[in-house]
Amino acid sequence: KKNAEFLSGQYGTNLLLIGAALMLAIANKNPSVKEEDLRSFTTCLMILQLLWMMWYILVRDRQKSAPPEKDVHATSGWIRGGLTLLALLSLIMDAFRIGQYVGFQPCVSAVLVVFPVIHATHTMAQVHFLWFHIKDVIKSFETFERFGVIHAVFTNILLWCSGVMSEAEHFLNNHKRRLSALGLINLTTEYSEPQCNCTTSTCSMFATSLYYLYPFNIEYHIFVSVLLFVMWRNIGRTIDLTSNHKRQVGKNPGLILGPLVGLLALASTIGILVVYVTHVEKSIQMRRSAVSMFYIYAIVMLTVMCIAGASGLLIYRVNHMPLDTSKNPSRQLDAEVLFGSSIGSWLMSWCSIVSVLSTESNPPYRWTNLVYSLFIVLEKYVQNLFIIESLYRQQEDGERQDPELPAAPEVFSVTSSLAPPYNGIINRTFESPDRSCVTTESEQEESEQVYGCPRKLSDVPAPVGNETVERPNIKRQILKNIAVFLIMCNISLWILSAFGCRPQYDNGLEEETYGFSIWSTVLNFAIPLNLFYRMHAVASLFEVFSRV
Amino acid sequence: KKNAEFLSGQYGTNLLLIGAALMLAIANKNPSVKEEDLRSFTTCLMILQLLWMMWYILVRDRQKSAPPEKDVHATSGWIRGGLTLLALLSLIMDAFRIGQYVGFQPCVSAVLVVFPVIHATHTMAQVHFLWFHIKDVIKSFETFERFGVIHAVFTNILLWCSGVMSEAEHFLNNHKRRLSALGLINLTTEYSEPQCNCTTSTCSMFATSLYYLYPFNIEYHIFVSVLLFVMWRNIGRTIDLTSNHKRQVGKNPGLILGPLVGLLALASTIGILVVYVTHVEKSIQMRRSAVSMFYIYAIVMLTVMCIAGASGLLIYRVNHMPLDTSKNPSRQLDAEVLFGSSIGSWLMSWCSIVSVLSTESNPPYRWTNLVYSLFIVLEKYVQNLFIIESLYRQQEDGERQDPELPAAPEVFSVTSSLAPPYNGIINRTFESPDRSCVTTESEQEESEQVYGCPRKLSDVPAPVGNETVERPNIKRQILKNIAVFLIMCNISLWILSAFGCRPQYDNGLEEETYGFSIWSTVLNFAIPLNLFYRMHAVASLFEVFSRV
Repeated sequence: KKNAEFLSGQYGTNLLLIGAALMLAIANKNPSVKEEDLRSFTTCLMILQLLWMMWYILVRDRQKSAPPEKDVHATSGWIRGGLTLLALLSLIMDAFRIGQYVGFQPCVSAVLVVFPVIHATHTMAQVHFLWFHIKDVIKSFETFERFGVIHAVFTNILLWCSGVMSEAEHFLNNHKRRLSALGLINLTTEYSEPQCNCTTSTCSMFATSLYYLYPFNIEYHIFVSVLLFVMWRNIGRTIDLTSNHKRQVGKNPGLILGPLVGLLALASTIGILVVYVTHVEKSIQMRRSAVSMFYIYAIVMLTVMCIAGASGLLIYRVNHMPLDTSKNPSRQLDAEVLFGSSIGSWLMSWCSIVSVLSTESNPPYRWTNLVYSLFIVLEKYVQNLFIIESLYRQQEDGERQDPELPAAPEVFSVTSSLAPPYNGIINRTFESPDRSCVTTESEQEESEQVYGCPRKLSDVPAPVGNETVERPNIKRQILKNIAVFLIMCNISLWILSAFGCRPQYDNGLEEETYGFSIWSTVLNFAIPLNLFYRMHAVASLFEVFSRV
Repeated sequence: KKNAEFLSGQYGTNLLLIGAALMLAIANKNPSVKEEDLRSFTTCLMILQLLWMMWYILVRDRQKSAPPEKDVHATSGWIRGGLTLLALLSLIMDAFRIGQYVGFQPCVSAVLVVFPVIHATHTMAQVHFLWFHIKDVIKSFETFERFGVIHAVFTNILLWCSGVMSEAEHFLNNHKRRLSALGLINLTTEYSEPQCNCTTSTCSMFATSLYYLYPFNIEYHIFVSVLLFVMWRNIGRTIDLTSNHKRQVGKNPGLILGPLVGLLALASTIGILVVYVTHVEKSIQMRRSAVSMFYIYAIVMLTVMCIAGASGLLIYRVNHMPLDTSKNPSRQLDAEVLFGSSIGSWLMSWCSIVSVLSTESNPPYRWTNLVYSLFIVLEKYVQNLFIIESLYRQQEDGERQDPELPAAPEVFSVTSSLAPPYNGIINRTFESPDRSCVTTESEQEESEQVYGCPRKLSDVPAPVGNETVERPNIKRQILKNIAVFLIMCNISLWILSAFGCRPQYDNGLEEETYGFSIWSTVLNFAIPLNLFYRMHAVASLFEVFSRV
């Protein structure tokens, strides 16, 4: 088994490295290796993955009598929903690509139309696979399936890489165009556009909207590869049935402050984005003020995020709870990926700090840049700890003690009001009128009537344990608010970076210290990782939100 | 515990990233960040590590009444011996550095003498720590110790990185000098030498010998960091005592072919190295023939290595043995590091393949380069599988069946001759004279007398199981030969790459496809990883050798 793991892992890594070698050659703009070569290579990989998925689904259909084990932790409904949304945007992107090809048909290679067609098919098949098979724990043809799954993983990573590369190239061209508009450099763009004119009127529309769709396509691929990787790790695993059940999520009373502040952050982020993108092209003065504005805004936001995360950690410190040590590959991977993808933006921040401290020029945003970078480091540090601690916490005491109770944390106050008959204090006057109420509760959970019933009891002096149960409930509410707030903030930071607000390019400090080529290499490595980090943090915080 | 892990892991990663930011700034040759800054930063880290080690040793000394648990898998005597040797070479290097400083004293910063002094102290303290404490399983002050250990890990990684950087810079300058000697480029070196003349006569001697000592210093630091990382993973672990015993290694009869062929490979390697290094500077014609010679030699060697590894795997396929699934962090790390460090040279090989297939120029070594690159990929693939399979194999059947027998595989034939009394065939005539013999065996293991005793019995018709036990013995001999041969080959390949035989710089093919800056970035990333891979493979194969 260990050998099959390494056999397939090495195969997948080599696939990725071939792709990387091709991409490096393309980056050098050498005429001997063209974009088309990479496209045909990824097309082949996608076709192979399609074949494997078809084979897998056929085999599963035949074995209908013995349905495979499922790992319920592998993914959740809202992740799949989100991915379906991203996949839809990817499909639109493919349609635009085909449209673009139609316009440029006379002068471009046919590979450019085959790729989007295959990609669209691949996307649809993969979404189907995600919905119905991603949780499977494979136990037959293990070695072959391992190759299939790892092939799928690395095909998606390769598609992510090539998306990242196109996006970075586009951004760099954009950046140069801006600089030349400001008169800072002489523009000598080498257009990668086709050599002929477009025959339809929609080409330029397609071209611009493509670049707004890119970020979604990129996130789609990296997310799918993470899910598939979990599936790969699950192959041949024996699932521990005791820890293999998932909690249901009910209503969330008291969830007001977090979403409210979060929405505020989101709204102001969009404002800042618009102001930034328009101001940064105008004049050097405007450019500097735009960068300063961004830093101040981000510092405020990061400070609040740090405080939120730290208070979440404090709450965990206050009530000691045993950690959940059951084996769960998807959770472990979550933590590792979170940690690994932080490295990109940490490197970026430390580079900024070094350059701020060593530079001789003194723009107005020099020290705000320093503070901003320090906060970026700190915020990721705290947020990672908060997420990991939340994921490794065991469920709250109350529910673990009576496992037969359908675990819905929000009906808690109800159960505590019903405490007397459960707590051994037998009170016949209570028992007889309430019995009907209890049965309706189990039948129509969370209906209004349930909340109506215990009110009759609340006049009675509060019974034992009411307070001790009430307190974690408040804590849980605070944690839920924190999680929602952090989700919104992470989405905001993702939007800022994904749609062109990248002061690391525009402030000029780091470029001075590191030189253009080193610094743009660092950014091309760090920014995609950072974008992935933000998205992944959102997903993990969702998980936290539904757990606490 | 999980949280402490991430807390300290994030701390360590950030240390490394600060160092990386400084190094990137230095690489840009910007006057605002100097070599001295990096040196002072690493000096601070080393001093911190020294303080922590002192604290740790003091605390351990106090707790002498309760000696800590030890993880016997953490390291072995010969690894520590090898590291001590590397440490000695590092000390010599420090002495040379101090000597160089004395010569240049008037014009260089004092940091350049503080660094080697602290480094020498650090090296000695660390070797002491390795000998007496690396196997400890820490169970008190866990969180604090975690920070200490991870600090040590990343200090060593940082020292590795800065060593790699200096080495790469030196090699690049050397490469440029060669090219200008051939008239291919115009040399415009920016000397990083101090601005004044040396006051002693030994400076240039120190400077040249420093560069021969660099490779050893580099390997020393990366190895120590791997060992310390295992220690970090062991913190707070509960050791499973049943699997926590190590096998002793005795004599190895029949170990002739492997070492012989291996020595042959090693000797011819040194010949090739000398010819290559002298020829590559002479003329373009000589240069080409030197590169061709290297490729042909390497192809032959890699082919033999592939065959050896594959036959090892075949032997494993023939006799099915259950895998050893007991928890063993150091083994798991070995496998992961082996896999991770292969990535560097795989990337390099795939880049070569892409450029050979796409290039227009046609040097004589074009297709040998292709074959060589393919073999590099294949050889790593096979060798990794062989090592991992060997490490995860359970010990041979015979010993596992009687675990009370001190496991010494070479006394195997002895145990099989003693089989009758153990196998339930009670034979009083045997029992009485042998009892003394058995007791001496357990008392003076592996003395001559042990081998003498059973000889009296061997006249007796061979008892049950003699043949089935004899056969794995032959297999084991083959496996041992393979391991020794692969060790020698890996050492050869390390020597070639470490001491200047790098055709990836000299053949010009990849440079044409990727451009100088991209290709040298790839090489600066891949070659240090490849060197580390070779050394690590040697260490793992040693482990394999003593296990089979």
